[in-house]
Amino acid sequence: MHLGVFVLGTGNHIAGWRMPGAYDSFQSLPVIQHIARIAERGLFDLLFLGDGLQAGPNDHPSFTARFEPITMLAALAATTTHLGLGATMSTSYAEPFNVARFYASLDHLSSGRAAWNAVTSSNPRSAPNFGRHHPPHDARYRVAEEFVDVVMGLWDCWDDGAIVAERDTGRYIDASKMRALDHVGEFFNVKGPLNIGRCPQGRPIILQAGSSEPGLELAARTADVVFSVVQDIEEARLAYRSLKDRMPRFGRRPEEIAVLPGVMPILGRTRQEARDVLDQLQSFVNATNAASLLSSRLGVDVSGFALDDLVPDLPLPDTSHGFARAMLSKARREGMTWRDMHNLTGAARGHWVIAGTVEDIADTLQEWFETGAADGFNILPAWFPGAFDGFVDEVVPELQRRGLFRTQYTGTTLRGHLGLEMPRNRFFD
Amino acid sequence: MHLGVFVLGTGNHIAGWRMPGAYDSFQSLPVIQHIARIAERGLFDLLFLGDGLQAGPNDHPSFTARFEPITMLAALAATTTHLGLGATMSTSYAEPFNVARFYASLDHLSSGRAAWNAVTSSNPRSAPNFGRHHPPHDARYRVAEEFVDVVMGLWDCWDDGAIVAERDTGRYIDASKMRALDHVGEFFNVKGPLNIGRCPQGRPIILQAGSSEPGLELAARTADVVFSVVQDIEEARLAYRSLKDRMPRFGRRPEEIAVLPGVMPILGRTRQEARDVLDQLQSFVNATNAASLLSSRLGVDVSGFALDDLVPDLPLPDTSHGFARAMLSKARREGMTWRDMHNLTGAARGHWVIAGTVEDIADTLQEWFETGAADGFNILPAWFPGAFDGFVDEVVPELQRRGLFRTQYTGTTLRGHLGLEMPRNRFFD
Repeated sequence: MHLGVFVLGTGNHIAGWRMPGAYDSFQSLPVIQHIARIAERGLFDLLFLGDGLQAGPNDHPSFTARFEPITMLAALAATTTHLGLGATMSTSYAEPFNVARFYASLDHLSSGRAAWNAVTSSNPRSAPNFGRHHPPHDARYRVAEEFVDVVMGLWDCWDDGAIVAERDTGRYIDASKMRALDHVGEFFNVKGPLNIGRCPQGRPIILQAGSSEPGLELAARTADVVFSVVQDIEEARLAYRSLKDRMPRFGRRPEEIAVLPGVMPILGRTRQEARDVLDQLQSFVNATNAASLLSSRLGVDVSGFALDDLVPDLPLPDTSHGFARAMLSKARREGMTWRDMHNLTGAARGHWVIAGTVEDIADTLQEWFETGAADGFNILPAWFPGAFDGFVDEVVPELQRRGLFRTQYTGTTLRGHLGLEMPRNRFFD
Repeated sequence: MHLGVFVLGTGNHIAGWRMPGAYDSFQSLPVIQHIARIAERGLFDLLFLGDGLQAGPNDHPSFTARFEPITMLAALAATTTHLGLGATMSTSYAEPFNVARFYASLDHLSSGRAAWNAVTSSNPRSAPNFGRHHPPHDARYRVAEEFVDVVMGLWDCWDDGAIVAERDTGRYIDASKMRALDHVGEFFNVKGPLNIGRCPQGRPIILQAGSSEPGLELAARTADVVFSVVQDIEEARLAYRSLKDRMPRFGRRPEEIAVLPGVMPILGRTRQEARDVLDQLQSFVNATNAASLLSSRLGVDVSGFALDDLVPDLPLPDTSHGFARAMLSKARREGMTWRDMHNLTGAARGHWVIAGTVEDIADTLQEWFETGAADGFNILPAWFPGAFDGFVDEVVPELQRRGLFRTQYTGTTLRGHLGLEMPRNRFFD
């Protein structure tokens, strides 16, 4: 089983920072260093940070005032030794040459622990920060397809061993081991090569989170890890199969992608205590913040709907399909009201929440893992450090006792933790 | 006197890596961490890294395979405590919103030690990596003027104290202390606000290195530190005055910019030993590499010129004015041949080289500092760690004995080291 932790300084729950002892800032190096230390103590595969390119006073606190992800991960590279370091960088508002460099540099700084979450920017509020109009969903994915190819191509412009640094002769580079990319495409023309040598991992790990048809195709072709948004084991199994079944068409084996659903575990010594913790968290939710996030998830302004009305069938938005599909499907299945939807969004931003004892949570994760719903999980602690300490100190040992999770790191690279082979270099292998 | 160190893993001399004991990689975290430790031992104001967006096998080794600067600085933020951390990020091939975020994030990670070198990309070989045509010199500066304004405006979108994080009420942001930028300009439309709060330094320090007319105007208006390229004290004094005299027009006092000429000190126990070290370094220069760098500096292909011919008067190139002006002026003054020019470029890439004893070097720096040619220096060690160790362990104590340089850090921010006040916030002060 593979485990990631989704980091937000104020906690993943929209009001997690209001819990006693919780961190309340996402602009503090000691905070993220502490979270990373807990993750390494828990032998996690990776620490992950999403991203957004806009801020408003009613957003999730960690979306409003936050570290820029690649700088945050680079800082953690210097003070961690085993933990994979992954983050989002948009394919909509960045240049492939720059993205390839950032993550190659992080891979060198961390000696092989970098991972890039290649996503299209789903929030239309980003566009005005770049003087653009927000492109529609499928157009964003056409750009993303080419963007990812260019980035992966740039990473292949250097062969291993290109830097010879022969002091006697003065030859520094073996020029036969670096080459241009010469990409000419629909959206990008990029000559290359990159100005940083072959990565310790061959190339950084590719993360993706798309659940739409083009998102699944892109993931099946290029991803190493997929974060999924699911609320139900049956749906999770279908999504898992749908992704893995596509892989042979791209010459890949199903085990070359680890599917990690996002889950917020709420732990208690009894089920009642866990429910009480969740109730306490939910009592902290500020209706304005939750409505703002829910409107963004569903692509409609929800502030006008009556809280006690049932959630109707809504079309998938042009922003992001994953959250909307999982949440609307849960609403249909469970007859949820708008009030329930606000609570669901406030809790884990649309991700799955499980509240229970250590055994309950271990049982659930084990069932998902052993019945084709997941290869592991992206853990979303409701607040830091308490909720994460609890998972690492209580649930991880239980998973280890059951033989489901590693009891020590056996390698030092993220690729190694994931059990993935070194990738083939398209030009030199 | 203020001191910076220009970091390149293989040394600033093009063949510095061939010296005994020299580091030969610019892709190694331990290498840059060691250099940063030496800089903090020497009580330097800042560590600085230039940048380029292209690579070829005949370039300077540290330009061919190098860390991306902002990730490198973020890694150093986590393992240093006082050192200012500055780097170049291009105004030609990046978005203002992203640049503002990267450096604000670095300022938070380092608790107030970030500095952004705002430069236009001078090397035309960068353009094909971004599917663009290289814009001409003055057009690049028109973009840069607006780019810097947008970045500085984004940094001002948050007031101090905007994050209130009141646990009792659930209010996280004081919405009256964040606002949009709503910039609509010739090259950029950027709404804002930034999604990271007011910086520890108010805003990161602005570095610049332009020496052309538009470059000096931009620096006089916006820079906190200017790196200059000079080969002669008279020229340095003229350039210093030319910059400082422009500042009152922008409502600024001359002491609000620190002018730091780049200089490569070559140290020996005797003058002869220093000359021998320089000769040894020069004997390592690979003619192809030096010719490639010189062609880039002068904007003409120099490979066809006979090495023993005198350097003729050449027009300033459309790439970068600073290096070409300083080098051509030196060539005229000293009757240099193309061979001399190759050596000058190979040594310090066009920067000023002084070879001598501790006293010689201290005398020279003191004269420049006390006679209106410099407020300090950007030191370019020919190789690492040896040449930098030598400067820190021998020249710095001599400067301290003369009362020219600090004997301890008195603050923890780069702004504090530079003796600069907190900047006014255009929206909230």
